[in-house]
Formats: sequence, structure tokens, C-alpha cells
Amino acid sequence: MTGWVAVAGLGPGAEDLITPEVQAALDQASDVIGYIPYVARVAPRPGLALHPSDNRVELDRARHALALARDGRQVVVVSSGDPGVFAMASALFEALGDDPAPEIRILPGITAMLAASARLGAPLGHDFCAINLSDNLKPWALIEKRLRLAAEADFAMAFYNPRSKSRPEGFARVLEILRESCGPERLISFARAVTTPEEALLTVTLAEARPEMADMRTVIILGNSATRRAGRWVYTPRSA
Amino acid sequence: MTGWVAVAGLGPGAEDLITPEVQAALDQASDVIGYIPYVARVAPRPGLALHPSDNRVELDRARHALALARDGRQVVVVSSGDPGVFAMASALFEALGDDPAPEIRILPGITAMLAASARLGAPLGHDFCAINLSDNLKPWALIEKRLRLAAEADFAMAFYNPRSKSRPEGFARVLEILRESCGPERLISFARAVTTPEEALLTVTLAEARPEMADMRTVIILGNSATRRAGRWVYTPRSA
Repeated sequence: MTGWVAVAGLGPGAEDLITPEVQAALDQASDVIGYIPYVARVAPRPGLALHPSDNRVELDRARHALALARDGRQVVVVSSGDPGVFAMASALFEALGDDPAPEIRILPGITAMLAASARLGAPLGHDFCAINLSDNLKPWALIEKRLRLAAEADFAMAFYNPRSKSRPEGFARVLEILRESCGPERLISFARAVTTPEEALLTVTLAEARPEMADMRTVIILGNSATRRAGRWVYTPRSA
Repeated sequence: MTGWVAVAGLGPGAEDLITPEVQAALDQASDVIGYIPYVARVAPRPGLALHPSDNRVELDRARHALALARDGRQVVVVSSGDPGVFAMASALFEALGDDPAPEIRILPGITAMLAASARLGAPLGHDFCAINLSDNLKPWALIEKRLRLAAEADFAMAFYNPRSKSRPEGFARVLEILRESCGPERLISFARAVTTPEEALLTVTLAEARPEMADMRTVIILGNSATRRAGRWVYTPRSA
């Protein structure tokens, strides 16, 4: 049988947000590779080898997937959310190298910011940006620069990976920069473990926001200058 | 029976990218409301009323959905892609007004830029922004300002609604600004009718890009300064 790699997005957590396309790839796979909690979301079955691995070994994982596919295996690399948003798709291409590539497919999923936006209302209803707050792979100064320019552009903003154990002070600094750039009344929403039984949603002003409102399971959405509340909902008008 | 409104994303076109959550809402609906080509994607069945309407009547459509739900109907408002990204979710909240709201759910879908990114590789693999290029509801000067600031921030960028009949010259101007801000070698991808039988993908440099490469069924992805090719794929490294 011909080998292939599919990099698939499992969505934010709920079973009924996994696309039929991704489910079909999992049903056809001989091997599933990914970060431990994501592989744990795949149902075991005879003939399916599960390869859970630790965080921060994305390139090793990608090379492993490519090697298995070159050996004729049918490999699904699982990401949560969408594989193209701060996840495994880029790592796979970084690992390709000069050897002939096996068949590759990227299978999109519901990314955390859009699941969070749906649960909150429509805070990303107009122009917005998505920023990874982790400085594992880029300099902190670049994060600060992007925050200030995005605020000047009056984008709504979604933040991934807000708090890391190795740099707990980073997110406090992010909140300072946002308060300076956007003012204390701007709305900010913390969406934790969206669409899972542990889901928790909180919307406050920047004046009220505290670093401990976020952890590594939280995606954060900052409104733009026109974002407002309507009852329990938060939305950004289409004209902003 | 209690009325409700669900604003649901049908994804970019392929049937197997519709989430089970959205399919379940369609199966329970008494009424489906939306722009003509999106309502045409919903299978008719006895007991289901289809309400197709023209483009640019989003607020009327939202008021209609709310009125039906207040009358006890089970209403799905359909958007293509994700309802929270340049689609009907914001319009629904704009239309809420002060009357008691019926039960509302926003059901996420695969938005065009993430489907396009998956088909192209991983061009949105690091920090990025999404900009609606239509000036129906915002001043053109704001679009230009956001383009220049996003370029300065070195975001990858996704552009929705690149060419309108009422302003065909707008996108030519966008390409000029991007060439000035990002240089002629930056990669830009045109993804038309992604995941449908009419899908067409094209990646060129900004020097080679022409306005007629886009129409209203095209989503456009501009790389950041580190975006590169790998064989037939385009991706942005995780460290950029």
C-alpha cells in the first residue's frame, strides 16, 4: 500500500466539531502521531499504532511521520484545533528536507480562536489578527512590536499560548502593553478549554484583567475599539 | 416547541468539511435563512422552509431569523466558512435590539482562509491577520492603514472579498501598497473556490501578481518575510 501523511486538526475538544474528512483519515490510518493529550483523543482499534510524544519535539515527530510514510504506512499527525495555526503543519514542511516527499495532505479543523469566538458571540467579526505569545521560537521583542502595531491598526486580536511555565511574567507584560495601547475600557475575553466539560468563559475590561485569568488551556480574544456587549454576548460590528 | 436561532458555518464548500454539530442543527431546523448560494447547499426535506435572500441584506435577514425564533420556530442562519469571520454572526447581534432574545447559538465552521492554507501547505503557520477588503461598510483609508501596519508587523495576511463589482480598482491598489511595503519577492497565493470542483490554486511573487488573479470567490494569502516554498507547498516557519 502507498504511504501517506495527513496532518489533521481535531478541533477544540468536542467530538461533534471533528470534520468527517478528519474522521475518515483516522479510520484509514495505520499510525497516529502527536502530542500525548491529542493522541489520547483518538479511539484505539486493532491495527492502529498510537505514537504519543511529549511537547516541544515537533520536528522529531514530523520526521517520524515522514519516515513511516516513506515505509508505506498511512500516518495521521494529530493537532488540536487547526493544524495550520500554531500547530504541526509548518513543522512537517520544515522537516521535509531534500528526500522525495510522500503524499501529504493537510486537513483543516476548527481552531481554538474561532470556537471561542462562537461561544462568546462574534468578537472576531471584523478584521483581526492571531498572535502566538510563546517566545520559545521567536524573540520577545517581536511579540511586543506586533502587539503595538496591531493595536494601532485597531485589529481585534486572538492570543494563543498566553502563559508558559518557563516565562510566567510574559503575559503580565502583554496586559500592560495592551492597557497602554488600547485603554482600560477595552473588552478582553478569556476562553478556557472551549467546548469541553471544563469550559469557562470570562469577559472583563483591560482594567480588570489579571494574568492569572489565563493558563495554557486558555485562548484570549481582545476586542477592537468598537467591540461591545449585547446581553451575555460580545461582538464586533461589521463596520468597525 | 421553543424557538431558537443557530448561526452556522457550512465550511468552504466540500460536504466532508461540514461539522456534525452543524449537520445536527440543520436536521432539527424548521427554517433555513441565508444568501441564495448558501441556502442552495442545504438539502430540502418535508417540513423545512428555505428562505434564500440576496446579498447585502444581512440585517434584514438577521431580523427575520429573530422574528421567526420568537414565534417558536427552529431557525438556522447559514454562512459559508465560519459565521464569525466576515459573516452573519455579527449581523445577528447588531439586529438584536432591546426585545428579549430567543435562544442563540453560534456554530463554528472551517473558514475560507484556513481551508486555503491547508490546500496550499501552511502559509498561516505563524502570526497572521485577516482583513476584509470590501469597503461597503468601512472607509477605504482604514483598509490602507491596516495593510501598512500589518506589513510593518510582518504578519502573514489573509484577504477576504478582494474584488467587488462596485470597486474593481481597489484590489489593484492593495497590490501596489503590498509591493511597496513587502517588496517584489514576497509570496502571494490566490485560492479560488477551495475544496469545490472549481478549486484553483496559484502562488506567485508580488512582482508577478495581477488584479485579475482574484475574483469574489478567491481568498488570498500573503506570506510573511520568512514564507517559502517546499516543492509544490508554501509554508511559514514556526520561528518567524
